Amino acid sequence: MIESFSLHHPDGATEIRVGRGALSAVAEEIGDWTAGRVLFVVSSAPIWDLHGRSLAPVEGRAARVVRLEVPDGEAAKTLAVAEQLWQRMLEAGGKRDSRVLAFGGGSVGDLAGFVAGCFLRGVEVVQVPTTLLAQVDASLGGKTAVDLPQAKNSVGVFHHPAWVVSDTEVLTTLSRRERAAGLAEVVKMALLLDPDLLHRVEDDLEALLAGDADALVPVVAGAARAKVAVVEDDPREGDRRRLLNFGHTLGHALETAAGYAGLLHGEAVNHGMRFAVRLARRRGFDAAEAERFCALLERLEPPPLPTLDRARVLAAMGRDKKAREDGLAWVLPARLGEGWITSDVPGAEVEEELARFLPD
Amino acid sequence: MIESFSLHHPDGATEIRVGRGALSAVAEEIGDWTAGRVLFVVSSAPIWDLHGRSLAPVEGRAARVVRLEVPDGEAAKTLAVAEQLWQRMLEAGGKRDSRVLAFGGGSVGDLAGFVAGCFLRGVEVVQVPTTLLAQVDASLGGKTAVDLPQAKNSVGVFHHPAWVVSDTEVLTTLSRRERAAGLAEVVKMALLLDPDLLHRVEDDLEALLAGDADALVPVVAGAARAKVAVVEDDPREGDRRRLLNFGHTLGHALETAAGYAGLLHGEAVNHGMRFAVRLARRRGFDAAEAERFCALLERLEPPPLPTLDRARVLAAMGRDKKAREDGLAWVLPARLGEGWITSDVPGAEVEEELARFLPD
Repeated sequence: MIESFSLHHPDGATEIRVGRGALSAVAEEIGDWTAGRVLFVVSSAPIWDLHGRSLAPVEGRAARVVRLEVPDGEAAKTLAVAEQLWQRMLEAGGKRDSRVLAFGGGSVGDLAGFVAGCFLRGVEVVQVPTTLLAQVDASLGGKTAVDLPQAKNSVGVFHHPAWVVSDTEVLTTLSRRERAAGLAEVVKMALLLDPDLLHRVEDDLEALLAGDADALVPVVAGAARAKVAVVEDDPREGDRRRLLNFGHTLGHALETAAGYAGLLHGEAVNHGMRFAVRLARRRGFDAAEAERFCALLERLEPPPLPTLDRARVLAAMGRDKKAREDGLAWVLPARLGEGWITSDVPGAEVEEELARFLPD
Repeated sequence: MIESFSLHHPDGATEIRVGRGALSAVAEEIGDWTAGRVLFVVSSAPIWDLHGRSLAPVEGRAARVVRLEVPDGEAAKTLAVAEQLWQRMLEAGGKRDSRVLAFGGGSVGDLAGFVAGCFLRGVEVVQVPTTLLAQVDASLGGKTAVDLPQAKNSVGVFHHPAWVVSDTEVLTTLSRRERAAGLAEVVKMALLLDPDLLHRVEDDLEALLAGDADALVPVVAGAARAKVAVVEDDPREGDRRRLLNFGHTLGHALETAAGYAGLLHGEAVNHGMRFAVRLARRRGFDAAEAERFCALLERLEPPPLPTLDRARVLAAMGRDKKAREDGLAWVLPARLGEGWITSDVPGAEVEEELARFLPD
């Protein structure tokens, strides 16, 4: 059973397919899209080793398939890697009607989306995310970027994919820890946007953590649909889309202060959401709902935070690119299915809560 | 007298102001746009020396003005220069609501537009073009890019400026040769899109070549309006916008074969248009109109072409990024005010005409 829906944006639409075996199911449609063209497949060596064969159905009708290997993980997201890819694409005869296929986790998708968005001022891209995190979040909505030493994601473009194909079969090779980190982003969207999805995750959590490809389909599709609704309301990331930053104000700062070591993004967001819930409790968020949500976050088994210098965490929050000139923004739950954004949390309150949350 | 009009595109609108003294005239409007923000001014040393003072009215109300100096000319259009700018912008506290002002010719505009388009996934930019070529063409329509060794303009984005401010006063310091090269792009648009503009250029040519800032206003505004109409019809460069490539199929190849030395872009386009007119004559373009148009191109005093290897010129045409997988496209005049695009010019015909056009 393949779930099929679209994301409409100012330049057109993204076709989304979610299911166990989705890659085979879309072979004909994607085949039409690549037929007779040069197809550049961007991926990392481990992904190719694990799943390369499942791409065969969608590669079949391209005039030529050129594989572009990039480093695994965040190391792929540099201008130097992007420049290498652009040069290789030109040398391989890439044209404005060539296609790019991003095959990997969020980093591969961010890089390949950026490379596609800037190559000859933009060629079409299909995102084939291979992590739960990328399937439910990063692959959707057109945000692409590479990092600079001064800040992550500081150079990028909005470039919506023509297709997102999320095959839950590829999630079976992830570790339990990676799936748990991805589920943190699912419950992030579920709490603020879709209480039914939250209940489903609570009910099916063991199967989801174990990587049951069938159980994952409605959860991936549900989270993707929630994100689609938000992005369609707000394609260029004004206030509405910023709801998706729930847990990220502190989460990003934890990642920065930890030097991106020992902490998965979804784990940092898990901790960040629990912190945001504390701020929300002081502003009327219901105690029972807070407790229930935090219990679910605990069941995602986040590893304890490394010892972090609180001053560095606070400094990192102020540097975050979302800290606009008008102050630090917090996304807080109001009740199940509803969130809000405020810049009205006094610095002293943040410091005080953080002292309890991150004891020396 | 300031001419004031807009270019509507899928993400909003570009406000265009053309006039003698336009920079002073827009001081209040641009002031509102920069007020309280960090303003990054991208320019080259020669432009600052010549015209830096004329920027004062538009810089006035920014919270902070950060000058970013880039190399003069095409040397500015590299990823290395872009990366330096992004790093300096982050270090100077650039945010998503910061502004970029591009002050220079087409190269500065292309680079600064690209830098603005990718910084934190896009900040707003004002283009203040200081060459005739940039005022009538490059600054309008959102095309931005840098070069790679393999191909010019191969990495870029569509990023429409919020404003284009074309002050004809700054054109007085250009050389006669630079103005003549810019006028080649004007008559390119005039022939295919606006016969009245063609007549005006014919009538006023001496004043225009001499840099008369008043005579230039209606010509710059007329060419800009013609370009606006085309871009509004075709924001992403489908067929309609490709009309603006009249003269560029051979023109780009001449530049490539000459190694971009000794030939201004407008001069290459001048030669390219005369070649395209030969192809058009064989397809029914009127002899008297062709003669009249070529006489005007001669009055622009293009220097003779350097000695070029014909085989290299032919090879360069095939590599041009506009040569899609379905063959080389030629933009040809049909009659005054009307052009068409064809991929149906046999290679043998091109070779034969080129042998006459570029004798050994």
